[in-house]
Amino acid sequence: MSDTWTNASVDQIGTFRKMTLFQNKDRSFALMSAGNLAITQSVKEILLQGQAFKGRNLWTAKNSYEAAVVVGNAIKQVFERDHAALEKAGLDFNCNMIFGGQVKGEKPRLFNIYSAGNFIESTPETCYFQIGESKYGKPILDRVLNFTTPLNLATKCALISMDSTLKSNISVGLPLDMLVYENNSLKATKLVTLDDANPYFAMIHQSWGERLREAFNSIAETQLEWRSKIQRHLPFPLRKWVLYQSIFPIQKAGG
Amino acid sequence: MSDTWTNASVDQIGTFRKMTLFQNKDRSFALMSAGNLAITQSVKEILLQGQAFKGRNLWTAKNSYEAAVVVGNAIKQVFERDHAALEKAGLDFNCNMIFGGQVKGEKPRLFNIYSAGNFIESTPETCYFQIGESKYGKPILDRVLNFTTPLNLATKCALISMDSTLKSNISVGLPLDMLVYENNSLKATKLVTLDDANPYFAMIHQSWGERLREAFNSIAETQLEWRSKIQRHLPFPLRKWVLYQSIFPIQKAGG
Repeated sequence: MSDTWTNASVDQIGTFRKMTLFQNKDRSFALMSAGNLAITQSVKEILLQGQAFKGRNLWTAKNSYEAAVVVGNAIKQVFERDHAALEKAGLDFNCNMIFGGQVKGEKPRLFNIYSAGNFIESTPETCYFQIGESKYGKPILDRVLNFTTPLNLATKCALISMDSTLKSNISVGLPLDMLVYENNSLKATKLVTLDDANPYFAMIHQSWGERLREAFNSIAETQLEWRSKIQRHLPFPLRKWVLYQSIFPIQKAGG
Repeated sequence: MSDTWTNASVDQIGTFRKMTLFQNKDRSFALMSAGNLAITQSVKEILLQGQAFKGRNLWTAKNSYEAAVVVGNAIKQVFERDHAALEKAGLDFNCNMIFGGQVKGEKPRLFNIYSAGNFIESTPETCYFQIGESKYGKPILDRVLNFTTPLNLATKCALISMDSTLKSNISVGLPLDMLVYENNSLKATKLVTLDDANPYFAMIHQSWGERLREAFNSIAETQLEWRSKIQRHLPFPLRKWVLYQSIFPIQKAGG
Protein backbone atom coordinates (compact mmCIF):
# COMPACT_ATOMS: atom_id res chain seq x y z
CA MET A 1 0.00 0.00 0.00
CA SER A 2 1.26 3.47 -0.79
CA ASP A 3 0.00 7.01 -0.40
CA THR A 4 0.41 9.56 -3.15
CA TRP A 5 1.75 12.72 -1.62
CA THR A 6 5.22 14.15 -1.93
CA ASN A 7 6.38 17.37 -0.36
CA ALA A 8 9.46 19.47 -0.79
CA SER A 9 7.87 21.63 1.89
CA VAL A 10 4.34 22.05 3.13
CA ASP A 11 3.64 24.58 0.40
CA GLN A 12 5.06 22.29 -2.28
CA ILE A 13 2.88 19.22 -2.04
CA GLY A 14 2.42 17.17 -5.17
CA THR A 15 0.43 14.07 -5.95
CA PHE A 16 2.41 11.20 -7.47
CA ARG A 17 1.76 7.49 -7.49
CA LYS A 18 4.43 5.63 -5.56
CA MET A 19 3.45 2.09 -6.55
CA THR A 20 4.52 0.60 -9.88
CA LEU A 21 3.62 -2.90 -11.03
CA PHE A 22 5.61 -5.02 -13.46
CA GLN A 23 4.19 -8.24 -14.74
CA ASN A 24 4.19 -10.69 -17.58
CA LYS A 25 3.05 -14.29 -17.80
CA ASP A 26 5.76 -15.73 -15.55
CA ARG A 27 6.22 -12.97 -12.98
CA SER A 28 4.52 -10.20 -11.06
CA PHE A 29 6.42 -7.50 -9.16
CA ALA A 30 5.37 -4.41 -7.21
CA LEU A 31 7.75 -1.54 -6.48
CA MET A 32 6.99 1.19 -3.95
CA SER A 33 9.20 4.18 -3.33
CA ALA A 34 9.95 6.78 -0.67
CA GLY A 35 12.47 9.57 -0.47
CA ASN A 36 13.57 12.07 -3.09
CA LEU A 37 11.06 11.93 -5.96
CA ALA A 38 13.62 13.02 -8.55
CA ILE A 39 15.70 9.99 -7.57
CA THR A 40 12.88 7.46 -7.36
CA GLN A 41 11.36 8.52 -10.69
CA SER A 42 14.74 8.11 -12.37
CA VAL A 43 15.16 4.66 -10.84
CA LYS A 44 11.73 3.67 -12.13
CA GLU A 45 12.52 5.01 -15.58
CA ILE A 46 15.68 2.92 -15.77
CA LEU A 47 13.70 -0.17 -14.78
CA LEU A 48 10.89 0.51 -17.24
CA GLN A 49 13.40 0.90 -20.05
CA GLY A 50 14.32 -2.70 -19.31
CA GLN A 51 17.97 -1.77 -19.19
CA ALA A 52 19.99 -4.92 -18.44
CA PHE A 53 22.41 -5.39 -15.55
CA LYS A 54 24.70 -8.41 -16.03
CA GLY A 55 22.34 -9.52 -18.75
CA ARG A 56 19.24 -9.32 -16.55
CA ASN A 57 16.34 -6.92 -16.22
CA LEU A 58 13.03 -7.25 -14.40
CA TRP A 59 11.64 -9.30 -17.30
CA THR A 60 14.54 -11.71 -17.56
CA ALA A 61 15.69 -12.03 -13.93
CA LYS A 62 15.70 -15.73 -12.99
CA ASN A 63 14.15 -15.05 -9.59
CA SER A 64 13.00 -12.27 -7.27
CA TYR A 65 16.42 -11.96 -5.72
CA GLU A 66 18.02 -11.22 -9.11
CA ALA A 67 15.23 -8.74 -9.75
CA ALA A 68 16.00 -6.96 -6.46
CA VAL A 69 19.65 -6.76 -7.54
CA VAL A 70 18.46 -5.12 -10.79
CA VAL A 71 16.49 -2.53 -8.80
CA GLY A 72 19.46 -1.91 -6.52
CA ASN A 73 21.69 -1.40 -9.53
CA ALA A 74 19.28 1.18 -10.97
CA ILE A 75 19.58 3.10 -7.68
CA LYS A 76 23.39 2.92 -7.92
CA GLN A 77 23.24 4.35 -11.45
CA VAL A 78 21.22 7.35 -10.31
CA PHE A 79 23.58 7.77 -7.35
CA GLU A 80 26.58 7.93 -9.69
CA ARG A 81 24.82 10.52 -11.81
CA ASP A 82 23.37 12.79 -9.10
CA HIS A 83 25.01 12.38 -5.71
CA ALA A 84 27.78 14.97 -6.23
CA ALA A 85 25.30 17.66 -7.24
CA LEU A 86 22.97 16.72 -4.40
CA GLU A 87 25.83 17.04 -1.93
CA LYS A 88 26.66 20.50 -3.26
CA ALA A 89 23.01 21.39 -2.68
CA GLY A 90 23.28 20.03 0.85
CA LEU A 91 20.82 17.22 0.10
CA ASP A 92 21.10 13.56 1.07
CA PHE A 93 20.76 10.87 -1.57
CA ASN A 94 17.50 9.65 -0.08
CA CYS A 95 15.83 6.69 -1.79
CA ASN A 96 14.05 3.77 -0.15
CA MET A 97 12.08 1.11 -1.93
CA ILE A 98 9.93 -1.87 -1.12
CA PHE A 99 10.10 -4.44 -3.88
CA GLY A 100 8.15 -7.67 -3.82
CA GLY A 101 6.46 -10.25 -5.93
CA GLN A 102 6.89 -13.67 -7.41
CA VAL A 103 8.59 -15.42 -10.28
CA LYS A 104 6.92 -18.63 -11.46
CA GLY A 105 8.27 -21.63 -9.57
CA GLU A 106 9.42 -19.55 -6.62
CA LYS A 107 7.61 -18.43 -3.47
CA PRO A 108 6.60 -14.76 -3.20
CA ARG A 109 9.40 -12.64 -1.74
CA LEU A 110 9.60 -9.12 -0.27
CA PHE A 111 12.63 -6.83 -0.14
CA ASN A 112 13.47 -3.51 1.49
CA ILE A 113 16.00 -1.72 -0.74
CA TYR A 114 18.16 1.09 0.66
CA SER A 115 19.72 4.22 -0.84
CA ALA A 116 22.97 2.33 -1.41
CA GLY A 117 21.15 -0.21 -3.57
CA ASN A 118 21.67 -2.95 -1.02
CA PHE A 119 18.64 -4.69 0.43
CA ILE A 120 17.20 -7.03 3.04
CA GLU A 121 14.48 -9.67 2.64
CA SER A 122 11.51 -10.24 4.92
CA THR A 123 11.43 -13.35 7.10
CA PRO A 124 8.79 -15.12 9.20
CA GLU A 125 10.03 -13.10 12.21
CA THR A 126 9.99 -9.78 10.34
CA CYS A 127 7.07 -10.16 7.99
CA TYR A 128 6.45 -6.54 6.95
CA PHE A 129 8.40 -3.52 5.75
CA GLN A 130 7.56 0.17 5.93
CA ILE A 131 9.37 3.04 4.23
CA GLY A 132 8.85 6.79 4.39
CA GLU A 133 6.65 8.09 7.19
CA SER A 134 6.46 4.79 9.01
CA LYS A 135 6.29 5.45 12.73
CA TYR A 136 2.70 6.56 13.31
CA GLY A 137 1.37 3.44 11.65
CA LYS A 138 3.77 0.94 13.20
CA PRO A 139 2.14 0.25 16.60
CA ILE A 140 -0.96 -1.40 15.13
CA LEU A 141 1.21 -3.52 12.81
CA ASP A 142 3.30 -4.61 15.79
CA ARG A 143 0.18 -5.60 17.71
CA VAL A 144 -1.68 -7.44 14.98
CA LEU A 145 0.58 -8.74 12.21
CA ASN A 146 2.51 -11.96 12.20
CA PHE A 147 3.65 -14.36 9.51
CA THR A 148 0.42 -16.40 9.73
CA THR A 149 -2.01 -13.43 9.52
CA PRO A 150 -4.52 -14.17 6.73
CA LEU A 151 -4.43 -11.83 3.72
CA ASN A 152 -7.83 -10.28 4.41
CA LEU A 153 -6.79 -9.35 7.97
CA ALA A 154 -3.41 -8.09 6.81
CA THR A 155 -5.30 -5.91 4.31
CA LYS A 156 -7.50 -4.45 7.03
CA CYS A 157 -4.43 -3.90 9.21
CA ALA A 158 -2.64 -2.01 6.43
CA LEU A 159 -5.65 0.27 5.98
CA ILE A 160 -5.88 1.01 9.71
CA SER A 161 -2.15 1.62 9.92
CA MET A 162 -2.25 4.07 7.02
CA ASP A 163 -5.32 5.76 8.49
CA SER A 164 -3.36 6.45 11.69
CA THR A 165 -0.55 7.96 9.61
CA LEU A 166 -2.99 10.09 7.64
CA LYS A 167 -4.45 11.41 10.90
CA SER A 168 -1.14 12.27 12.52
CA ASN A 169 0.90 13.56 9.58
CA ILE A 170 -0.45 16.16 7.19
CA SER A 171 2.16 15.34 4.54
CA VAL A 172 0.67 11.89 3.89
CA GLY A 173 -2.43 11.94 1.75
CA LEU A 174 -5.11 10.23 -0.29
CA PRO A 175 -5.60 8.55 -2.65
CA LEU A 176 -3.97 5.30 -1.52
CA ASP A 177 -2.93 2.54 -3.90
CA MET A 178 -3.23 -0.98 -2.52
CA LEU A 179 -2.28 -4.30 -4.02
CA VAL A 180 -3.07 -7.64 -2.41
CA TYR A 181 -0.99 -10.28 -4.16
CA GLU A 182 -2.26 -13.85 -4.02
CA ASN A 183 0.31 -16.63 -4.04
CA ASN A 184 0.90 -18.13 -7.51
CA SER A 185 -1.55 -15.80 -9.25
CA LEU A 186 1.41 -14.17 -11.03
CA LYS A 187 -0.75 -11.13 -11.61
CA ALA A 188 -2.22 -8.19 -9.72
CA THR A 189 -5.75 -9.50 -9.28
CA LYS A 190 -6.59 -7.39 -6.23
CA LEU A 191 -5.70 -3.77 -6.83
CA VAL A 192 -7.59 -0.73 -5.66
CA THR A 193 -7.17 3.02 -5.42
CA LEU A 194 -8.78 4.45 -2.30
CA ASP A 195 -9.94 8.00 -1.77
CA ASP A 196 -12.33 9.40 0.81
CA ALA A 197 -15.25 8.48 -1.44
CA ASN A 198 -14.48 4.80 -0.93
CA PRO A 199 -17.15 3.50 1.50
CA TYR A 200 -14.98 0.84 3.13
CA PHE A 201 -12.05 3.15 3.77
CA ALA A 202 -14.46 5.86 4.98
CA MET A 203 -15.95 3.29 7.38
CA ILE A 204 -12.49 2.40 8.71
CA HIS A 205 -11.54 6.06 9.03
CA GLN A 206 -14.75 6.65 11.00
CA SER A 207 -14.88 3.45 13.04
CA TRP A 208 -11.24 3.08 14.06
CA GLY A 209 -11.22 6.32 16.01
CA GLU A 210 -14.40 5.27 17.84
CA ARG A 211 -13.07 1.76 18.52
CA LEU A 212 -9.79 3.17 19.82
CA ARG A 213 -11.68 5.45 22.20
CA GLU A 214 -13.84 2.52 23.32
CA ALA A 215 -10.71 0.46 23.94
CA PHE A 216 -9.23 3.39 25.84
CA ASN A 217 -12.39 3.77 27.97
CA SER A 218 -12.38 0.06 28.71
CA ILE A 219 -9.01 0.30 30.47
CA ALA A 220 -9.32 0.86 34.21
CA GLU A 221 -8.43 4.35 35.37
CA THR A 222 -5.20 5.15 37.11
CA GLN A 223 -4.53 3.13 40.24
CA LEU A 224 -1.06 4.34 41.09
CA GLU A 225 0.65 4.71 44.45
CA TRP A 226 1.82 8.27 44.07
CA ARG A 227 5.26 9.07 45.34
CA SER A 228 3.87 11.81 47.58
CA LYS A 229 2.34 9.10 49.75
CA ILE A 230 5.70 7.45 50.34
CA GLN A 231 7.98 10.39 50.85
CA ARG A 232 9.14 8.73 54.04
CA HIS A 233 11.28 6.68 51.67
CA LEU A 234 13.18 9.75 50.51
CA PRO A 235 16.74 9.70 51.80
CA PHE A 236 16.57 13.33 52.92
CA PRO A 237 13.77 15.82 53.62
CA LEU A 238 12.51 18.01 50.80
CA ARG A 239 14.64 21.12 50.50
CA LYS A 240 13.84 24.53 49.05
CA TRP A 241 14.25 22.93 45.67
CA VAL A 242 13.93 19.28 44.90
CA LEU A 243 15.82 17.43 42.24
CA TYR A 244 13.98 14.12 42.28
CA GLN A 245 16.52 12.86 39.83
CA SER A 246 19.00 12.45 42.63
CA ILE A 247 16.47 10.87 44.94
CA PHE A 248 14.98 7.90 43.17
CA PRO A 249 16.77 4.61 42.73
CA ILE A 250 17.38 3.90 39.07
CA GLN A 251 16.59 0.52 37.59
CA LYS A 252 17.53 -0.86 34.22
CA ALA A 253 14.60 -1.65 31.96
CA GLY A 254 13.26 -5.10 32.68
CA GLY A 255 15.17 -4.99 35.95
CA MET B 1 6.09 11.69 31.64
CA SER B 2 9.58 10.73 30.57
CA ASP B 3 11.46 7.54 29.90
CA THR B 4 15.00 7.06 31.12
CA TRP B 5 17.05 5.68 28.26
CA THR B 6 19.64 7.48 26.23
CA ASN B 7 21.61 5.93 23.41
CA ALA B 8 24.61 7.06 21.47
CA SER B 9 24.13 3.81 19.60
CA VAL B 10 22.37 0.57 20.43
CA ASP B 11 25.44 -0.69 22.21
CA GLN B 12 25.77 2.50 24.21
CA ILE B 13 22.51 2.70 26.09
CA GLY B 14 22.52 4.47 29.41
CA THR B 15 19.85 5.10 32.00
CA PHE B 16 19.37 8.75 32.98
CA ARG B 17 16.39 10.51 34.42
CA LYS B 18 15.03 13.09 32.00
CA MET B 19 12.60 14.80 34.35
CA THR B 20 13.73 17.41 36.84
CA LEU B 21 11.43 19.20 39.26
CA PHE B 22 12.00 22.64 40.73
CA GLN B 23 9.77 23.91 43.47
CA ASN B 24 9.52 26.22 46.43
CA LYS B 25 6.55 27.59 48.26
CA ASP B 26 5.32 29.86 45.46
CA ARG B 27 6.14 27.81 42.37
CA SER B 28 6.45 24.33 40.94
CA PHE B 29 8.14 23.57 37.61
CA ALA B 30 8.93 20.37 35.74
CA LEU B 31 11.60 20.18 33.04
CA MET B 32 11.92 17.25 30.64
CA SER B 33 14.67 16.89 28.10
CA ALA B 34 15.43 15.12 24.83
CA GLY B 35 18.40 15.22 22.49
CA ASN B 36 22.09 15.25 23.26
CA LEU B 37 22.54 14.28 26.91
CA ALA B 38 25.78 16.23 27.26
CA ILE B 39 23.86 19.35 26.27
CA THR B 40 20.75 18.74 28.36
CA GLN B 41 22.73 17.89 31.50
CA SER B 42 24.71 21.12 31.13
CA VAL B 43 21.50 23.11 30.70
CA LYS B 44 20.10 21.52 33.85
CA GLU B 45 23.29 22.25 35.76
CA ILE B 46 23.13 25.94 34.85
CA LEU B 47 19.51 26.07 36.01
CA LEU B 48 20.23 24.25 39.27
CA GLN B 49 23.07 26.65 40.04
CA GLY B 50 20.38 29.33 40.02
CA GLN B 51 22.46 31.43 37.68
CA ALA B 52 20.54 34.64 36.93
CA PHE B 53 19.59 35.92 33.48
CA LYS B 54 18.55 39.58 33.51
CA GLY B 55 18.30 39.26 37.27
CA ARG B 56 16.00 36.25 37.12
CA ASN B 57 16.41 32.55 37.71
CA LEU B 58 13.83 29.79 38.17
CA TRP B 59 13.36 30.81 41.81
CA THR B 60 12.89 34.50 41.14
CA ALA B 61 11.12 34.54 37.75
CA LYS B 62 7.90 36.53 38.06
CA ASN B 63 5.92 34.02 36.05
CA SER B 64 6.24 30.83 33.99
CA TYR B 65 6.99 32.76 30.83
CA GLU B 66 10.01 34.44 32.45
CA ALA B 67 11.08 31.02 33.73
CA ALA B 68 10.89 29.59 30.19
CA VAL B 69 13.10 32.49 29.03
CA VAL B 70 15.60 31.51 31.75
CA VAL B 71 15.63 27.90 30.47
CA GLY B 72 16.04 29.12 26.88
CA ASN B 73 18.95 31.29 27.94
CA ALA B 74 20.66 28.33 29.61
CA ILE B 75 20.40 26.46 26.29
CA LYS B 76 21.93 29.46 24.48
CA GLN B 77 24.86 29.48 26.94
CA VAL B 78 25.62 25.81 26.24
CA PHE B 79 25.27 26.48 22.50
CA GLU B 80 27.87 29.26 22.70
CA ARG B 81 30.21 26.97 24.58
CA ASP B 82 29.84 23.76 22.55
CA HIS B 83 28.35 24.28 19.10
CA ALA B 84 31.66 24.90 17.28
CA ALA B 85 33.19 21.70 18.63
CA LEU B 86 30.01 19.75 17.91
CA GLU B 87 30.06 21.00 14.31
CA LYS B 88 33.67 19.87 13.92
CA ALA B 89 32.55 16.45 15.16
CA GLY B 90 29.72 16.49 12.61
CA LEU B 91 27.06 16.60 15.35
CA ASP B 92 23.95 18.78 15.51
CA PHE B 93 23.27 20.88 18.55
CA ASN B 94 20.25 18.80 19.48
CA CYS B 95 18.33 19.85 22.59
CA ASN B 96 14.56 19.85 23.10
CA MET B 97 12.80 20.50 26.35
CA ILE B 98 9.30 20.50 27.73
CA PHE B 99 8.98 22.97 30.58
CA GLY B 100 5.80 23.48 32.53
CA GLY B 101 4.38 24.37 35.85
CA GLN B 102 2.83 27.19 37.79
CA VAL B 103 3.81 30.31 39.67
CA LYS B 104 1.43 31.36 42.44
CA GLY B 105 -1.27 33.69 41.10
CA GLU B 106 -0.90 32.44 37.55
CA LYS B 107 -2.52 29.54 35.70
CA PRO B 108 -0.38 26.48 34.94
CA ARG B 109 1.51 26.86 31.65
CA LEU B 110 3.37 24.45 29.37
CA PHE B 111 6.20 25.26 26.95
CA ASN B 112 8.10 23.40 24.24
CA ILE B 113 11.65 24.81 24.13
CA TYR B 114 13.81 24.32 21.04
CA SER B 115 17.55 23.98 20.48
CA ALA B 116 17.77 27.70 19.73
CA GLY B 117 16.35 28.48 23.17
CA ASN B 118 13.16 29.84 21.66
CA PHE B 119 9.87 28.26 22.64
CA ILE B 120 6.15 27.89 22.04
CA GLU B 121 3.35 27.59 24.59
CA SER B 122 0.49 25.10 24.54
CA THR B 123 -3.02 26.32 23.77
CA PRO B 124 -6.54 24.86 24.03
CA GLU B 125 -6.18 23.72 20.39
CA THR B 126 -2.73 22.17 20.94
CA CYS B 127 -2.91 20.91 24.48
CA TYR B 128 0.06 18.53 24.57
CA PHE B 129 3.72 18.46 23.59
CA GLN B 130 6.01 15.53 22.82
CA ILE B 131 9.77 15.61 22.36
CA GLY B 132 12.23 12.89 21.42
CA GLU B 133 10.78 9.66 20.03
CA SER B 134 7.28 11.03 19.63
CA LYS B 135 5.67 9.46 16.59
CA TYR B 136 4.74 5.95 17.76
CA GLY B 137 2.81 7.35 20.70
CA LYS B 138 1.09 10.22 18.88
CA PRO B 139 -1.91 8.48 17.27
CA ILE B 140 -3.57 7.60 20.58
CA LEU B 141 -3.01 11.15 21.86
CA ASP B 142 -4.59 12.54 18.69
CA ARG B 143 -7.63 10.28 19.15
CA VAL B 144 -8.25 10.81 22.86
CA LEU B 145 -6.79 14.05 24.19
CA ASN B 146 -8.37 17.45 24.12
CA PHE B 147 -8.20 20.51 26.33
CA THR B 148 -11.11 19.31 28.48
CA THR B 149 -9.80 15.76 29.10
CA PRO B 150 -9.82 15.14 32.89
CA LEU B 151 -6.42 14.61 34.53
CA ASN B 152 -7.04 10.95 35.35
CA LEU B 153 -7.87 10.16 31.72
CA ALA B 154 -4.94 12.22 30.45
CA THR B 155 -2.74 10.20 32.80
CA LYS B 156 -4.05 6.92 31.42
CA CYS B 157 -3.59 8.23 27.87
CA ALA B 158 0.02 9.19 28.57
CA LEU B 159 0.73 5.69 29.89
CA ILE B 160 -0.83 4.01 26.85
CA SER B 161 1.00 6.35 24.48
CA MET B 162 4.33 5.60 26.12
CA ASP B 163 3.56 1.88 26.13
CA SER B 164 3.12 2.00 22.35
CA THR B 165 6.47 3.75 22.03
CA LEU B 166 8.14 1.19 24.28
CA LYS B 167 6.75 -1.61 22.14
CA SER B 168 7.83 -0.14 18.80
CA ASN B 169 11.21 1.39 19.65
CA ILE B 170 13.88 -0.50 21.52
CA SER B 171 15.77 2.68 22.43
CA VAL B 172 12.99 3.86 24.75
CA GLY B 173 12.95 2.11 28.10
CA LEU B 174 11.71 1.74 31.64
CA PRO B 175 11.56 3.07 34.24
CA LEU B 176 9.23 5.95 33.42
CA ASP B 177 8.90 9.06 35.56
CA MET B 178 5.44 10.60 35.65
CA LEU B 179 4.21 13.75 37.30
CA VAL B 180 0.56 14.75 37.44
CA TYR B 181 0.40 18.38 38.46
CA GLU B 182 -2.82 19.58 40.08
CA ASN B 183 -3.82 23.19 39.53
CA ASN B 184 -2.80 25.51 42.39
CA SER B 185 -1.12 22.74 44.38
CA LEU B 186 2.25 24.46 43.75
CA LYS B 187 3.94 21.16 44.48
CA ALA B 188 4.48 17.76 42.92
CA THR B 189 1.87 15.82 44.85
CA LYS B 190 1.43 13.05 42.28
CA LEU B 191 4.76 11.68 41.20
CA VAL B 192 5.60 8.10 40.41
CA THR B 193 8.40 6.06 38.90
CA LEU B 194 7.10 3.12 36.90
CA ASP B 195 8.96 -0.05 36.06
CA ASP B 196 7.61 -3.40 34.90
CA ALA B 197 6.99 -4.36 38.53
CA ASN B 198 4.31 -1.68 38.78
CA PRO B 199 0.95 -3.54 38.69
CA TYR B 200 -1.02 -0.76 37.01
CA PHE B 201 1.51 -0.19 34.26
CA ALA B 202 1.87 -3.95 33.82
CA MET B 203 -1.92 -4.15 33.47
CA ILE B 204 -1.91 -1.43 30.81
CA HIS B 205 0.97 -3.07 29.00
CA GLN B 206 -0.94 -6.36 28.99
CA SER B 207 -4.47 -5.05 28.39
CA TRP B 208 -3.84 -2.44 25.73
CA GLY B 209 -2.49 -4.94 23.25
CA GLU B 210 -5.54 -7.17 23.82
CA ARG B 211 -7.95 -4.25 23.57
CA LEU B 212 -6.31 -3.05 20.37
CA ARG B 213 -6.67 -6.52 18.88
CA GLU B 214 -10.31 -6.64 20.00
CA ALA B 215 -10.91 -3.25 18.39
CA PHE B 216 -9.18 -4.51 15.25
CA ASN B 217 -11.31 -7.66 15.18
CA SER B 218 -14.47 -5.62 15.63
CA ILE B 219 -13.88 -3.79 12.34
CA ALA B 220 -15.61 -5.45 9.39
CA GLU B 221 -13.29 -7.26 7.02
CA THR B 222 -12.35 -5.90 3.66
CA GLN B 223 -15.25 -5.08 1.38
CA LEU B 224 -13.43 -3.54 -1.54
CA GLU B 225 -14.25 -3.52 -5.21
CA TRP B 226 -10.94 -4.72 -6.53
CA ARG B 227 -9.63 -3.10 -9.65
CA SER B 228 -9.33 -6.45 -11.38
CA LYS B 229 -13.12 -6.63 -11.52
CA ILE B 230 -13.35 -3.37 -13.38
CA GLN B 231 -10.53 -3.65 -15.86
CA ARG B 232 -13.01 -2.72 -18.54
CA HIS B 233 -12.36 0.81 -17.31
CA LEU B 234 -8.71 0.60 -18.30
CA PRO B 235 -8.01 2.83 -21.30
CA PHE B 236 -5.98 0.12 -23.01
CA PRO B 237 -5.65 -3.66 -22.69
CA LEU B 238 -2.99 -5.06 -20.37
CA ARG B 239 0.32 -5.25 -22.19
CA LYS B 240 3.34 -7.43 -21.51
CA TRP B 241 4.07 -5.10 -18.65
CA VAL B 242 1.66 -2.80 -16.92
CA LEU B 243 2.46 0.49 -15.31
CA TYR B 244 -0.78 1.16 -13.44
CA GLN B 245 0.60 4.53 -12.54
CA SER B 246 -0.23 5.75 -16.02
CA ILE B 247 -3.65 4.19 -15.97
CA PHE B 248 -5.48 5.45 -12.93
CA PRO B 249 -6.97 8.92 -12.65
CA ILE B 250 -5.31 10.88 -9.88
CA GLN B 251 -7.31 12.82 -7.33
CA LYS B 252 -6.11 15.32 -4.77
CA ALA B 253 -6.68 14.27 -1.18
CA GLY B 254 -10.18 15.14 -0.07
CA GLY B 255 -11.01 15.56 -3.74
